[in-house]
Amino acid sequence: MTHPFDQALTLDLQALPPDADQAQAARVFAGRTHPDYANMVGPFGGVTAAQMLQAVLRHPDRLGDPLALTVNYAAGLRDAPFRIEARPARTNRSTQHWTLSLVQVDEGGQESTYVTATAVTAARRSTWSAVEAPMPSDVPAPESTERVAAPGRVRWTDRYDMRAIAGRLPMQWDGTEADSVTRLWVRDDPLRPLDFASLAAMSDVFFPRVWRRRAHMTPAGTVSITVYFHVSADGLAATGTGWLLGQARAQSFFNGFFDQSAELWNEAGHLLATTHQIVYYKE
Amino acid sequence: MTHPFDQALTLDLQALPPDADQAQAARVFAGRTHPDYANMVGPFGGVTAAQMLQAVLRHPDRLGDPLALTVNYAAGLRDAPFRIEARPARTNRSTQHWTLSLVQVDEGGQESTYVTATAVTAARRSTWSAVEAPMPSDVPAPESTERVAAPGRVRWTDRYDMRAIAGRLPMQWDGTEADSVTRLWVRDDPLRPLDFASLAAMSDVFFPRVWRRRAHMTPAGTVSITVYFHVSADGLAATGTGWLLGQARAQSFFNGFFDQSAELWNEAGHLLATTHQIVYYKE
Repeated sequence: MTHPFDQALTLDLQALPPDADQAQAARVFAGRTHPDYANMVGPFGGVTAAQMLQAVLRHPDRLGDPLALTVNYAAGLRDAPFRIEARPARTNRSTQHWTLSLVQVDEGGQESTYVTATAVTAARRSTWSAVEAPMPSDVPAPESTERVAAPGRVRWTDRYDMRAIAGRLPMQWDGTEADSVTRLWVRDDPLRPLDFASLAAMSDVFFPRVWRRRAHMTPAGTVSITVYFHVSADGLAATGTGWLLGQARAQSFFNGFFDQSAELWNEAGHLLATTHQIVYYKE
Repeated sequence: MTHPFDQALTLDLQALPPDADQAQAARVFAGRTHPDYANMVGPFGGVTAAQMLQAVLRHPDRLGDPLALTVNYAAGLRDAPFRIEARPARTNRSTQHWTLSLVQVDEGGQESTYVTATAVTAARRSTWSAVEAPMPSDVPAPESTERVAAPGRVRWTDRYDMRAIAGRLPMQWDGTEADSVTRLWVRDDPLRPLDFASLAAMSDVFFPRVWRRRAHMTPAGTVSITVYFHVSADGLAATGTGWLLGQARAQSFFNGFFDQSAELWNEAGHLLATTHQIVYYKE
């Protein structure tokens, strides 16, 4: 059976019009939201980010592997088909710059932009390398930590085995202020070998920092996420179906929007991705 | 005399073609690079980011103030005129999503994309707010710290009064490894009241982290920068021409690209912006 994440990533490359310039053309992919990755309203944003990246990965003119991805959630997706357009805005010798948009038919029957994105892919060369943000060393093994109970209201959290180490969802919504840090182990459920698309999705598994900071439940939603990839295809293969250690925190909560920065390491301590987002919160 | 930064921000809004849809249309602005903000090759990337943001700020259909900005440097700008196209991809009740590109005529006489960007503007409401990343308290006053001597090779550094607190440029390029952290005070020179555009530019004043980390001079250049704004126009006005405290560090150096995260506080301790970039390095 096809893994649900691979089902969600399924994109159908549309034929170019006969008069189109075949080289370096914008290409259109048809896809749809997947019920296994449903959030409270619309899909889990991590899967949307992965779908945008997948359009780059599937583009016939792609050069290199993902280096940077920024996804802007302009409107909540409908549980319905969509089209992603991926355009190589510039191709250099070793880097390529992508512009993307996701379009759906809105309630009024009109095509509207729901997501915009940019991405950079790069053909990397081997150089001096170093991790300056080391994996926290004082963490219990994933096997000895408890799986985060799914809140039951959303489906996507069942698709990740998350083991809370610190900073779990508040047990009591009593307004007690704390720092916003969460540490957890995470991997796909069912197991699936890590790739760039799933790494992008896992960059968004952390619940809204404002809930942690305030022990106060308020509506929240990501407005824009950026993922930087610090790993090659070989490093992903070496990670395989292993656990990732994730850590997230906010730096500023200001008049309706907070930021969140997070890191994802594999068990060997390789920092695979650093990721940042700006998130709406109601109060 | 007009401040050089305002000269650099000068954009000439082009008339729409007579048949264009006047509402929510893409608008084109003509501008050019400014010699006072020249880098070793092409302009200082912070000013390019500010010019992209300025096209949003100048767009007649803009809603709200800057919340997020991502600028991708697809190719080194030529010291020449350019056109920026700013398009409101989606306008919601309180947020607006922007797609931008900068086009120049290349050496072969062809129009090419040199920069792509996305931005989000938002009409903020007053909510519970908090700074979780407080300004470092153990820093000397700007008046008692030494101005960073300009390396002499680039013009843009003369346009900022930067006072190094920690992690200055290595004095000896002897390969001694250190952490990548830099702290400094910064403000415009000549003085200029802070606004969103200059805050975007100051997000990019930090020299490449790889130089600090390794005490090794290697070619480096920003590929993509993201800025999150955590301040209102009132907060900018309150900051005025005061100093900003900036702090930058890398988390990963991997096969030709490192990341850099930075924070900018005003002297009152308000965290004005958090910013992230991914940077090419040669070796």
